[in-house]
Amino acid sequence: MSQKIVIALGGNALQSKDSAPTADGQLSVVKKTCEHIADIIESGYEVAVVHGNGPQVGRILLASETANDVTPAMPFDVCGAMSQGYIGYHIQQALKYALSIRNINYPVLTVATQVAVDREDPGFKNPTKPIGPFYSEDEAKALEAERGYTMKEDAGRGWRRVVASPIPRRIVEIEAIKNLWDSSVVISCGGGGIPVVENMDGTLEGVAAVIDKDFAAELLAEQVEADTLMILTEVEKVAINFGKPDQENLDHMSLKQATEYIAQGQFAPGSMLPKVEACMKFVRANPGKKAIITSLDKAVEALEGKTGTVVSFA
Amino acid sequence: MSQKIVIALGGNALQSKDSAPTADGQLSVVKKTCEHIADIIESGYEVAVVHGNGPQVGRILLASETANDVTPAMPFDVCGAMSQGYIGYHIQQALKYALSIRNINYPVLTVATQVAVDREDPGFKNPTKPIGPFYSEDEAKALEAERGYTMKEDAGRGWRRVVASPIPRRIVEIEAIKNLWDSSVVISCGGGGIPVVENMDGTLEGVAAVIDKDFAAELLAEQVEADTLMILTEVEKVAINFGKPDQENLDHMSLKQATEYIAQGQFAPGSMLPKVEACMKFVRANPGKKAIITSLDKAVEALEGKTGTVVSFA
Repeated sequence: MSQKIVIALGGNALQSKDSAPTADGQLSVVKKTCEHIADIIESGYEVAVVHGNGPQVGRILLASETANDVTPAMPFDVCGAMSQGYIGYHIQQALKYALSIRNINYPVLTVATQVAVDREDPGFKNPTKPIGPFYSEDEAKALEAERGYTMKEDAGRGWRRVVASPIPRRIVEIEAIKNLWDSSVVISCGGGGIPVVENMDGTLEGVAAVIDKDFAAELLAEQVEADTLMILTEVEKVAINFGKPDQENLDHMSLKQATEYIAQGQFAPGSMLPKVEACMKFVRANPGKKAIITSLDKAVEALEGKTGTVVSFA
Repeated sequence: MSQKIVIALGGNALQSKDSAPTADGQLSVVKKTCEHIADIIESGYEVAVVHGNGPQVGRILLASETANDVTPAMPFDVCGAMSQGYIGYHIQQALKYALSIRNINYPVLTVATQVAVDREDPGFKNPTKPIGPFYSEDEAKALEAERGYTMKEDAGRGWRRVVASPIPRRIVEIEAIKNLWDSSVVISCGGGGIPVVENMDGTLEGVAAVIDKDFAAELLAEQVEADTLMILTEVEKVAINFGKPDQENLDHMSLKQATEYIAQGQFAPGSMLPKVEACMKFVRANPGKKAIITSLDKAVEALEGKTGTVVSFA
């Protein structure tokens, strides 16, 4: 039996810091990324892909709000759905090709994915995630009044809308994703999923929120009973004392060690911290399994136990 | 064995002419549309859904081009992928609910779909489909020079970009869509599919083109071996002498009759003509099967043979 791996791709897998934030720029980075993913699949692993969407959904929202006078701006959940189509299309096109030149003929498929969050999630009471364009204070106050947005001043650069970053509770399309696993490489939960809440009458309703893609990948890994949650980022290993003379790159962290490092403030919020927390959640739920944080180009070696940072229960 | 139906949804299934072209406006129309689709499924048919995207992709492109000074405009294939995410998300959310209140628990899934077209398609030599914003003549000439667009003057309203409307040749994700058929209601080929051409090295490449959604639905129906291609539009039956005193609503058309009506110019290009042609193509390829053109609210009755216009081989 092949090992099942859920791969979470970070921003560097989709866009280079050096190139313009265009669709062409994204596609050329995605092509390189998909070579690495194809290498993993060629090594015999069954793979599903989850990707982030921060910069992409930000630009979709920016274009939508900028053009509001000529065509009505889109709500944030719809912008998320559009980013899933945009990014998924590029990954599925590039990954299918990278597999085909390895004589692997799996279908590769992007599925629009809703992820249900709890309406009572504490994140909704204190939204912190800035999205979309900068506004003047007057514009910001007007948007608060007209649209009910929460606006915050952003480090002297102007005012921005902030939204919640709630915990993902349920992947709405999970049954279909499970059905697809055996026959296809599935790209799902893009950008953490399109955020929805469940109403009393059973309807779902899109909300303005940003779900962390590493937590969404973790939930997916639990639900498909993956053997490994693999979070790919810019660094080969997680470090403590990062950027200091005594920086130490970690081969392994137990839950206990990870908890201590977090208490010491070793991992940056919004960056390495959620990745470590997602790994901890996966191994807490699956004490016999492991999670790995490493870089794209080291993914195959990390799966062979040669590098990366492994998070395990003990 | 249940009958397999591929349903093609027209623009009126997604947006009302009376309401603002907003996401909320679309969602409220989609909810009604999905009640009708759920009725078809409740009647015992296995269904897949294809939808148009003309107004939606037009607005995505308009926002993208309008905001080009603040964030780079997206190419048209990417706008199409975004429209699949946007529209698919709404249909899957609404259809899942409409099924659930009928105690039907099928997964409903939107898949990003690339449709390959022929680079030598005559449509690319003489593009006719206007997309995106209107420009002045000077702006139009500049876009022709800078981006290689084909621009045409549009009935005194200004200049617009025109793109090809090529024939769909291959649904790239067809294997996965077939795999999903038995377990899910699949929404695919949105807007006729993301148009791509196949390069000599096997890579796919997005192109600026508009694939007719009825022809894409026809190709899907052939490939999944559907029993019926059902094209839902605003009218209950196809008419000849439309709008004249001797208007006749048709219960049935053979291939031979349809060919004669087309020669008489009975069906409007860009409107009823491609629908009739898609139906003809389906029954020509499947002489024992039928295609139906009717309205959303008459779909169940039409499947029971009580109304609609049936197109058959003989």
